[in-house]
This record gives sequence, C-alpha cells and structure tokens, in this order.
Amino acid sequence: MKVLVVGANGQIGHQVVEKLKDKGHDPVAMVRKEEQTEKFKEKGIETVLGNLQEDFSHAFEGVDTVVFAAGSGGDTGADMTIIIDQEGAIESMENAKDAGVRHFIIVSSMGADTPKEYDDIKHYLYAKHRADEHLKASGLDYTIIRPGMLENESGTGKVSLSEENQEFGNVQREDVASVIVQAVDAGKAENKVYTLLEGDTPVEDLFK
Amino acid sequence: MKVLVVGANGQIGHQVVEKLKDKGHDPVAMVRKEEQTEKFKEKGIETVLGNLQEDFSHAFEGVDTVVFAAGSGGDTGADMTIIIDQEGAIESMENAKDAGVRHFIIVSSMGADTPKEYDDIKHYLYAKHRADEHLKASGLDYTIIRPGMLENESGTGKVSLSEENQEFGNVQREDVASVIVQAVDAGKAENKVYTLLEGDTPVEDLFK
Repeated sequence: MKVLVVGANGQIGHQVVEKLKDKGHDPVAMVRKEEQTEKFKEKGIETVLGNLQEDFSHAFEGVDTVVFAAGSGGDTGADMTIIIDQEGAIESMENAKDAGVRHFIIVSSMGADTPKEYDDIKHYLYAKHRADEHLKASGLDYTIIRPGMLENESGTGKVSLSEENQEFGNVQREDVASVIVQAVDAGKAENKVYTLLEGDTPVEDLFK
Repeated sequence: MKVLVVGANGQIGHQVVEKLKDKGHDPVAMVRKEEQTEKFKEKGIETVLGNLQEDFSHAFEGVDTVVFAAGSGGDTGADMTIIIDQEGAIESMENAKDAGVRHFIIVSSMGADTPKEYDDIKHYLYAKHRADEHLKASGLDYTIIRPGMLENESGTGKVSLSEENQEFGNVQREDVASVIVQAVDAGKAENKVYTLLEGDTPVEDLFK
C-alpha cells in the first residue's frame, strides 16, 4: 500500500512514516526542504518534495492512502493556521481526489466539533473543523482522528479510541502515529470520526 | 422586503442599512452592542443585537434577504479573520437556511478566487474564499460581490460590475453599498459572483 504522508517532518508525521515502513507498507514522506529528506533516505524510505503553499499535486500520483499530519505549529501566527492547517489540508484532499486516492486520514483535534466552546484556540479549532467538514463532503473514504493534548513521551501501545466524545485528556504522539498506521488498511476505520486519548486498548486490537 | 444586515455597524454595512430604508425596504441592523443601536433607532430603523461569537440565530426570523457585511477589520489578528470573516459568515448562512431565508448577499473581496497569488493577505483571501465556497454550496440563492480596494470618499453612483475578473483597482465603499441595495430585489443578481470597481455604469442600470 503506497501511503503519502503530508507533513512527514512533523512530530507525528515522521513516526507515521517509520511505523508504516516497519509494517511493510510503502510510505512516501512529503517534506518541504531537500535537507529534510536525508533522515528518511538513510532508512530506505521514499521522499517527495512538496510545499503546501505552492502546487504539490505531483506528490499524489499512484498513491493509495494519504495521511495528513501537517500543522503550522505553535510558533507561527493564525495566518499560517489558515494557510497550512486548513487550506493545506483542503488542497491535499482535492489533490487526492484528482489522483484517484481512495482513503484519506487526517490528524484533527479534540474540540474541532465545538470550536465555540473554546477561547484561546478557537480559531485553530475552527480551521481544523473546516478541514474535517471538507473531507467528510469530499467523496473520499475518510478517517478523522481527533487526539487530546499531545505529549512527547514514548508510546504505551494502548489508547482509548471512540466514535463518541470523551472527557478531555492526554495522548502520546507516538500512540497517535500507531493508531494512524493501524487505520491505514482497516476497512472499519473508513468514514469514521474518532476521539483519541491514552487508555487501555492495545492499538493492534483496534478496528476489528 | 425584510433585509437583515449582519455587520451593520461597519463602514459598508451602515450605508447599506440607510440606503435600504431610503428605497422603501425594511432593513434590520444587526449590531453587537446596545449603544450601537441608537443611530439606527433615531432614523426609525429596526435593530437586533447579535454577536457572531455567540448564538445569533434569533436575528434571522422572518427575514427574506441577508446582507453579510461584517469583517474583523485591519486592527485584529488573523485569529479573528477565521472567527468573524470566515466562520461568522458560514454560521450566518446556516442560520439563514434554518430560518427559510431565500437570498444571501455577501461582501467578499477581489482575489478571493486565487488566494495563492497573494502574500500579505493570503490568509484573509482564503477565509473569504472558504466563506464564498460555502455559500455557493449552501442551496441559498447567492450574490457574491468582490470589490477591489475599498475607499471612503463619497460614492459616484457609477461602477464597473462584472462576472469576469477585472484588473485590480479601487471602489468607494458607498458605491459598494449602492450595488448591494440594487441587488436585493434583482432576480438577475442571484447565483452570481461579481467583481466590483469604480467605473462608468450607473448603479440603477445594473442587473437589467
């Protein structure tokens, strides 16, 4: 399965790429800069250069599944939230449709269904919400994963994944990556919206 | 014709309200604060309090046409561009649909069809683009008006309004307001996207 990871240089994205490779998939790491390709090439992982602010449709040729894990991050302004998190995602969906991609997995955020309830991050949640809504209406098979507060410790291999909302909590980025990889070839994960937190269910038992 | 003007305290909005009244329509000025109602009430114009960041669906009851002329303005951050220009507009459309409104007129911007071509205002144009796209897909009869650079001198009563793109230029806010009022009861303005600049066509000759 050829899987394009958009945002492969990010904290979740690079773990998705490596776990896909470990599991025998055929990941393609899309990164913005030439120097970001090296760490993937060293591991025999295919890379493609693509900038979300330019035309990056070439990256989608022959791809079966797209994982959108890009984000403008906390150090940039809300203008980049629109440009990357919202519009980079929406253009990725359009590129995927044009290229005949079947399945599109997006890293969203808990709260993206109810942005009005939040203050400081309201604009971020609206951008995530708008991208998610575009995906649901796109005709692509979609998996929308809405993690809680992201943490950087090692993954536990166990999570709480639910189609219902869950009380807000934390989850390790590595576990988010593992859930995405588990979803890549899981028919049951298609056309679903999940919240994701740390929990008790082994990742390999999901989508059964 | 009962016409709800969202953003009635704004530079275009308040002129739309007054021109609607002068033309014999029944405008309702939606403003955020009680003290903003006085200047309308003095002229016998109906007002309704509504905050785009809260629930403002009550404002749409019995309304035939909505004019969305709200904007977060140049003094706020891009977070407010998402919250007001994009999401305030989209929620207005949803409120309009729920209330059985027939016609929705929005003040967009030249460049909203090609945000990538711009630099400093790219995020703003994406937000306007996303709102426009939502309106086109909403099922409401729509009129999308994309003015050029807005100026504050008196209106000339003459414009260049086109369904084609036009070379970028200026237009007086008062003339934008006049075009909107002309569009309110013009069947030919429905389900159209226009660019708008200063020009030679008398506003009263539009949509014939």
